[in-house]
Amino acid sequence: DFLHALEEIVPAFGASTYDLERCRLNGIVDCGERHKHIYQRAMLLVEQVKVSKGSPLVTCLLEGPGGSGKSAMAATIGIDSDFPYVKIISAESMIGLSESTKCAKIVKVFEDAYRSQLSIIVLDDIERLLEYVPIGPRFSNLISQTLMVLLKRLPPKGKNMLVIGTTSEAGFLESLGICDAFSVTYHVPTLDKQDAKKVLQSLNVFADDDIDSAAEAVHNMPIKKLYMLVEMAAQGAEGGSSEAIYSGKQKMDINHFFDILGDIVSLRG
Amino acid sequence: DFLHALEEIVPAFGASTYDLERCRLNGIVDCGERHKHIYQRAMLLVEQVKVSKGSPLVTCLLEGPGGSGKSAMAATIGIDSDFPYVKIISAESMIGLSESTKCAKIVKVFEDAYRSQLSIIVLDDIERLLEYVPIGPRFSNLISQTLMVLLKRLPPKGKNMLVIGTTSEAGFLESLGICDAFSVTYHVPTLDKQDAKKVLQSLNVFADDDIDSAAEAVHNMPIKKLYMLVEMAAQGAEGGSSEAIYSGKQKMDINHFFDILGDIVSLRG
Amino acid sequence: DFLHALEEIVPAFGASTYDLERCRLNGIVDCGERHKHIYQRAMLLVEQVKVSKGSPLVTCLLEGPGGSGKSAMAATIGIDSDFPYVKIISAESMIGLSESTKCAKIVKVFEDAYRSQLSIIVLDDIERLLEYVPIGPRFSNLISQTLMVLLKRLPPKGKNMLVIGTTSEAGFLESLGICDAFSVTYHVPTLDKQDAKKVLQSLNVFADDDIDSAAEAVHNMPIKKLYMLVEMAAQGAEGGSSEAIYSGKQKMDINHFFDILGDIVSLRG
Amino acid sequence: DFLHALEEIVPAFGASTYDLERCRLNGIVDCGERHKHIYQRAMLLVEQVKVSKGSPLVTCLLEGPGGSGKSAMAATIGIDSDFPYVKIISAESMIGLSESTKCAKIVKVFEDAYRSQLSIIVLDDIERLLEYVPIGPRFSNLISQTLMVLLKRLPPKGKNMLVIGTTSEAGFLESLGICDAFSVTYHVPTLDKQDAKKVLQSLNVFADDDIDSAAEAVHNMPIKKLYMLVEMAAQGAEGGSSEAIYSGKQKMDINHFFDILGDIVSLRG
Amino acid sequence: DFLHALEEIVPAFGASTYDLERCRLNGIVDCGERHKHIYQRAMLLVEQVKVSKGSPLVTCLLEGPGGSGKSAMAATIGIDSDFPYVKIISAESMIGLSESTKCAKIVKVFEDAYRSQLSIIVLDDIERLLEYVPIGPRFSNLISQTLMVLLKRLPPKGKNMLVIGTTSEAGFLESLGICDAFSVTYHVPTLDKQDAKKVLQSLNVFADDDIDSAAEAVHNMPIKKLYMLVEMAAQGAEGGSSEAIYSGKQKMDINHFFDILGDIVSLRG
Amino acid sequence: DFLHALEEIVPAFGASTYDLERCRLNGIVDCGERHKHIYQRAMLLVEQVKVSKGSPLVTCLLEGPGGSGKSAMAATIGIDSDFPYVKIISAESMIGLSESTKCAKIVKVFEDAYRSQLSIIVLDDIERLLEYVPIGPRFSNLISQTLMVLLKRLPPKGKNMLVIGTTSEAGFLESLGICDAFSVTYHVPTLDKQDAKKVLQSLNVFADDDIDSAAEAVHNMPIKKLYMLVEMAAQGAEGGSSEAIYSGKQKMDINHFFDILGDIVSLRG
Ligand SMILES: Nc1ncnc2c1ncn2[C@@H]1O[C@H](COP(=O)(O)OP(=O)(O)OP(=O)(O)O)[C@@H](O)[C@H]1O
Ligand SMILES: Nc1ncnc2c1ncn2[C@@H]1O[C@H](COP(=O)(O)OP(=O)(O)OP(=O)(O)O)[C@@H](O)[C@H]1O
Ligand SMILES: Nc1ncnc2c1ncn2[C@@H]1O[C@H](COP(=O)(O)OP(=O)(O)OP(=O)(O)O)[C@@H](O)[C@H]1O
Ligand SMILES: Nc1ncnc2c1ncn2[C@@H]1O[C@H](COP(=O)(O)OP(=O)(O)OP(=O)(O)O)[C@@H](O)[C@H]1O
Ligand SMILES: Nc1ncnc2c1ncn2[C@@H]1O[C@H](COP(=O)(O)OP(=O)(O)OP(=O)(O)O)[C@@H](O)[C@H]1O
Ligand SMILES: Nc1ncnc2c1ncn2[C@@H]1O[C@H](COP(=O)(O)OP(=O)(O)OP(=O)(O)O)[C@@H](O)[C@H]1O
Ligand SMILES: [Mg+2]
Ligand SMILES: [Mg+2]
Ligand SMILES: [Mg+2]
Ligand SMILES: [Mg+2]
Ligand SMILES: [Mg+2]
Ligand SMILES: [Mg+2]
Repeated sequence: DFLHALEEIVPAFGASTYDLERCRLNGIVDCGERHKHIYQRAMLLVEQVKVSKGSPLVTCLLEGPGGSGKSAMAATIGIDSDFPYVKIISAESMIGLSESTKCAKIVKVFEDAYRSQLSIIVLDDIERLLEYVPIGPRFSNLISQTLMVLLKRLPPKGKNMLVIGTTSEAGFLESLGICDAFSVTYHVPTLDKQDAKKVLQSLNVFADDDIDSAAEAVHNMPIKKLYMLVEMAAQGAEGGSSEAIYSGKQKMDINHFFDILGDIVSLRG
Repeated sequence: DFLHALEEIVPAFGASTYDLERCRLNGIVDCGERHKHIYQRAMLLVEQVKVSKGSPLVTCLLEGPGGSGKSAMAATIGIDSDFPYVKIISAESMIGLSESTKCAKIVKVFEDAYRSQLSIIVLDDIERLLEYVPIGPRFSNLISQTLMVLLKRLPPKGKNMLVIGTTSEAGFLESLGICDAFSVTYHVPTLDKQDAKKVLQSLNVFADDDIDSAAEAVHNMPIKKLYMLVEMAAQGAEGGSSEAIYSGKQKMDINHFFDILGDIVSLRG
Repeated sequence: DFLHALEEIVPAFGASTYDLERCRLNGIVDCGERHKHIYQRAMLLVEQVKVSKGSPLVTCLLEGPGGSGKSAMAATIGIDSDFPYVKIISAESMIGLSESTKCAKIVKVFEDAYRSQLSIIVLDDIERLLEYVPIGPRFSNLISQTLMVLLKRLPPKGKNMLVIGTTSEAGFLESLGICDAFSVTYHVPTLDKQDAKKVLQSLNVFADDDIDSAAEAVHNMPIKKLYMLVEMAAQGAEGGSSEAIYSGKQKMDINHFFDILGDIVSLRG
Repeated sequence: DFLHALEEIVPAFGASTYDLERCRLNGIVDCGERHKHIYQRAMLLVEQVKVSKGSPLVTCLLEGPGGSGKSAMAATIGIDSDFPYVKIISAESMIGLSESTKCAKIVKVFEDAYRSQLSIIVLDDIERLLEYVPIGPRFSNLISQTLMVLLKRLPPKGKNMLVIGTTSEAGFLESLGICDAFSVTYHVPTLDKQDAKKVLQSLNVFADDDIDSAAEAVHNMPIKKLYMLVEMAAQGAEGGSSEAIYSGKQKMDINHFFDILGDIVSLRG
Repeated sequence: DFLHALEEIVPAFGASTYDLERCRLNGIVDCGERHKHIYQRAMLLVEQVKVSKGSPLVTCLLEGPGGSGKSAMAATIGIDSDFPYVKIISAESMIGLSESTKCAKIVKVFEDAYRSQLSIIVLDDIERLLEYVPIGPRFSNLISQTLMVLLKRLPPKGKNMLVIGTTSEAGFLESLGICDAFSVTYHVPTLDKQDAKKVLQSLNVFADDDIDSAAEAVHNMPIKKLYMLVEMAAQGAEGGSSEAIYSGKQKMDINHFFDILGDIVSLRG
Repeated sequence: DFLHALEEIVPAFGASTYDLERCRLNGIVDCGERHKHIYQRAMLLVEQVKVSKGSPLVTCLLEGPGGSGKSAMAATIGIDSDFPYVKIISAESMIGLSESTKCAKIVKVFEDAYRSQLSIIVLDDIERLLEYVPIGPRFSNLISQTLMVLLKRLPPKGKNMLVIGTTSEAGFLESLGICDAFSVTYHVPTLDKQDAKKVLQSLNVFADDDIDSAAEAVHNMPIKKLYMLVEMAAQGAEGGSSEAIYSGKQKMDINHFFDILGDIVSLRG
């Protein structure tokens, strides 16, 4: 059955490179100073964990709007750390499991990590791990208790660990008391006009004259949505123009781009 | 038993043409520009999924009042896509199942689709899949979590997928955060006077003089209710006139039509 | 045990004449234009189902105060339809069963009906099927979801079905969204002065001079309560006069009738 | 175990005289017109059930404050009816049972009664059968649904039944919709000054001069509490005087009587 | 396991003297008129139960702030009654048991008592038996229903019973309707200045000059807290003085006594 | 499995020195008068328990903001008591267990302790033991009831026990009524400017000129957060300076220290 199938994808030990790489399907491009600053600070925590004697457990939360690049950032830190044990815990690999089975799986990852000298665990999309919905609100208290204990429990003597959490529901985690359980929290922002321009330039699908107005129009959009928007618009009004545009033979029709942008923002505007 | 019987109706693979065709029992007639526009945009998404390399998963939500033609539209897109795997997930085939069995069935459809190069999955009547009632409100959080994860989970390398959701409870999905999980949302409207006239003309049961006043009277009615209304009225005040009317031998009695319309709207008016 | 015993009473197929007849223990008398109008319209729906090609499923809700004659009306339509499959689904035959067993039984009736060319299903006292209490309110969401799906699910090709629901809690069904699931809704009223007079005349237990003041006094009473009231009063202040009154040898003492009426309405007045 | 033991006390058939007699441990004394009127009306219902052809089920609710004599009245009606099947359903015989077992036991009593030509079932302390507490409020919806269905379900052809309910929480039953399920409701009152005097006279423990002031002091007290109060006071301030008082050798000390009365009403006063 | 171990401590029959004595670890000293009055009235109830013919069940509730001496009082009444069956039901002996097991144990004690001519059952700390917390509030309705039924259920013919309840949450019991189920309720108070002085004198650890100011300072303290406070203060600021003080060799340092008192009341003050 | 693994870490008897020592990973330094005062008073309770005859159970609650040193203090008292049985009950050793298993484990520790002449039990992070979240709020009533009973249950004759609780949610425990169950409560504070200076001096990583401004900046910070902050800052802006700083070869860059401080307080500021 499917649960069995899922099981197989999850190796018990070691850095799961495939999982980490899937978190940054559009690669990592320069998208402004604020993203870069967070990355650098997080790499200092990696260093601290490597050398620390007094505090074997350091925890860090990346919070920000949906699609702002939190998971890609966390995965990148994990990859760049070169730690022997790097693991991402995400709701994707636990679909349909009961609360207690999810807890057991989460605890298992920590127990495995405790055997490694140095380890990084990414708790991706914590609100999803907690099965959170704003109506009620409802969430799994079993899992939230487990996380709160794990975020405080020290690894055994001689083992050091960095835990990186990501969430787009910082307010909810705050009200649970989970935010306070992290040593430090960073806000991963949407793109401002300058950031967006950088990303659009790296994509190289707009005419030079259009790029500023395009960047202005997508001001405050998260990076993941920007990638989706560009790809939708690249089909053209009649379809079929995508290959020409990505290969550079043709430039994006800026009016069609604005039309598609209108479709996307209308409901929420 | 009946669960076993239901089971048999659901083939594990391939496009389920019978299910899709049942969604448009009254066929597809021209009912105005707004319906047509949505259809065209959705077909661009089909095209995008066909050629995309960067984003293997595109998701689209059709929302609008009950009977406005969402399911028929989604089924039509599925049929017209010519994708090897097209599947509709609806509450009809899961009556009486437990939440977790429903989840497993939904996940199973996605897992099956992941094996196909190109696939379309229709999540029909999402509020019904979620077992939603406005009192409380109550709904299945297990299923809502499953959908939120599936709407973000990428298919394996090299497989592309389009997910089309339909709902008449957009406000509820919005408050759950499920709307935001879709790449784009389209509003499927009721019929305005012009749209209704087109549909009534295609039915050809009114006298030419009556068609305008009939269209005016049903202004803002969803297309599915209009079909039901016409059929109820076609029986005539004494019954028995339906065959004559549909075969064109006799025209609809416009006063009886208004009477029946009165019965239908009185309670909700 | 008793569940087993109940089981035996419920035949799997065919019109359950005994059940239908029990719904109109006091027969069907003329009780005014409004009741008659609903009956006629409902019989048009029966006709529509017989001849329809486009819409294999027609649904109709009878709502009104407790005792206004909804169940008797629905049973009468079922009996008068001459359809091969007529079945009443009521809470009486499902006392003490779990929600899911009730669902399975309801679904079973629909599945059986799908095998018949023409069928009528009466969902009697929907609020009771839903285990509704106003405090909370509480109700079975499992059953409400099942009904909402069944009220939309089309019978297989070539089979046509009429579903008649009855309820004295229209407001509750409205707020669940179940009212909207019906094609049309009719309000079954209490008796006004004229209606009550007709019923009392058919009973023939009052002196001619008393019948108008009696009818006036029971203005707005549902028909079922009127029958109970007359029978209680017929015992006389000292008891024992009932036979004489029903056989016509003696007339009802109008003052005692008013006394008993006072007992009945005092608490709720 | 104790459940087994309870079981044995409950005979499956026939009038349970011991249970009925236990409900009126202090006998039945004349306590005023209002109690007598209810008794007489209820005996008319007994008569109606005996002769009725049209309505095989009559239901009657006795409501009033705790201790006002409802259970004793219901038991008396049962005893005086001379029906072959008279049964009291009370929470006492179902302590610690699960909701569904309670339902089954209640249904069992009705099923047994259906086999008898004439039967009376007393639903004693309905709020206790429903496991009601005002905080929340909480109650068993399973049992409340069962009662609502049983109060409407007709006995088989040729069998007639009277159901008498008692409750001191009429407001709660009203809000559940259970009150409306009864054909008629009577309010069993506390004792007014005259009523109390009658009861005290029949006890014959006060000096003639004291009886009026005693009756005045207990104005509005339910009869059961009055019996308890008198017995407590009869011990005397030093204890030991009870036998002398009940045997008539000594009269009640009216001041001690008022003291004890003060203890009882202080908290609730 | 521990449940088994607990089991052994609880003998099935007879007065459990050890349990009763543990309730008054600091003995019973004279602590004022109000305590004494309650004791005397309760002993009258003991007498009433001994001689009563009419009312085989008498129930009495002792309510008051935490530590005011309710359990010690109830135990004392039990001991002084010389009844053959005296039993205390407390949450201590039911830690970790399920609601239904607790119910069964409680019922068992009553069933055992019913076999005794005369019996006393102490329901100690009813709010704890009910698993009450003010947040929500939450409590076991199963147990509350069981108690409400047991408080009304008459013992078999010829057996008489006194039930004494204790609680520090009278308001909660009132709102459940449990208070009304008791025949009479007494309020066990904290100590006023005079009462406290009596208790301190009997302890004999203060200098004569200090005793009034000490008594004044602990005005309105429950007796159990006063014992704890004195013992804490008796250690002295540096520790080690306790033996000297209790043996009378040294007097309590009044300033240190006030310091410790300050620690205790600060948070709640 | 992991539960089994956890099991092994928990010895059934005796002082668990390893557990206690882990609670004070940064040792115990002088951090001001207020901390010292609490320690001294608690050691008086240890003494009281040693010599008490009247009150075999003394209970004490340490409450204060997260990281203020409650667990380290409790562990230190346990270690310094030299009692034969000292045990810490914390959520860490019960991750993923069911409520009832947790209860059984907690009761087991008490039962074990009852066999020891003198014992100390630390209930660490009571809100975590109760699985508390502020949303709702939700918590385990089973565990809260168990704790409330255990905090009142006397050890067997001749055995004396001290229970120390810690919590950072005093308000919540207050509203549960758990605070009142403790004999005395102490508030463990954050560091004021003077306290912080003492801690920073003992760390010896700042230049003498910077230590005052550093202490001022961290005014009102709990001691545990201060240790974390210093270690994060010690890495330096470029990383790699930590060893030099802790070995004394280099002093902390005060500006970088303020930057890192800004990261930590920004969200909550
Ligand atoms: N500098 C960057 N930082 C982060 N992401 C980047 C960057 N450059 C490109 N990306 C791309 O942007 C996308 C960021 O999406 P990601 O899933 O990380 O967002 P997210 O904040 O985790 O979204 P969600 O809230 O839905 O979980 C990825 O596809 C990634 O490859
Ligand atoms: N252009 C059209 N678009 C959609 N539906 C059409 C069109 N022309 C005719 N129809 C008919 O209108 C009906 C639309 O009903 P459909 O079930 O799709 O509505 P819906 O919005 O899904 O309703 P619900 O909210 O109840 O699920 C179908 O019977 C379909 O055959
Ligand atoms: N014309 C009529 N229409 C309906 N009922 C009639 C008519 N004439 C007589 N009756 C009698 O009136 C009674 C109507 O009761 P019925 O149970 O149908 O009411 P109801 O509205 O279903 O009540 P409830 O709300 O309690 O379910 C029946 O006994 C029926 O025999
Ligand atoms: N005329 C009377 N009617 C009713 N009860 C009477 C009468 N005369 C004496 N009694 C005595 O009064 C008592 C009435 O108590 P009963 O248990 O019937 O009250 P209740 O209203 O059912 O109380 P509760 O609300 O607690 O169930 C009985 O002991 C009964 O013997
Ligand atoms: N006259 C007295 N009455 C009651 N208790 C007394 C008296 N004299 C001394 N005591 C002592 O006072 C203490 C009273 O504590 P007790 O446990 O009875 O209080 P409580 O009200 O039951 O407390 P809680 O609300 O915590 O259950 C006992 O230790 C008892 O020995
Ligand atoms: N005098 C002291 N008192 C307490 N802790 C001290 C002291 N000196 C140093 N410390 C250190 O400070 C830290 C206090 O952290 P601790 O875990 O005890 O705080 P806490 O209040 O229990 O936190 P939490 O609320 O998160 O449970 C420990 O690392 C301990 O070694
Ligand atoms: Mg993410
Ligand atoms: Mg649809
Ligand atoms: Mg009906
Ligand atoms: Mg009663
Ligand atoms: Mg007590
Ligand atoms: Mg701590």
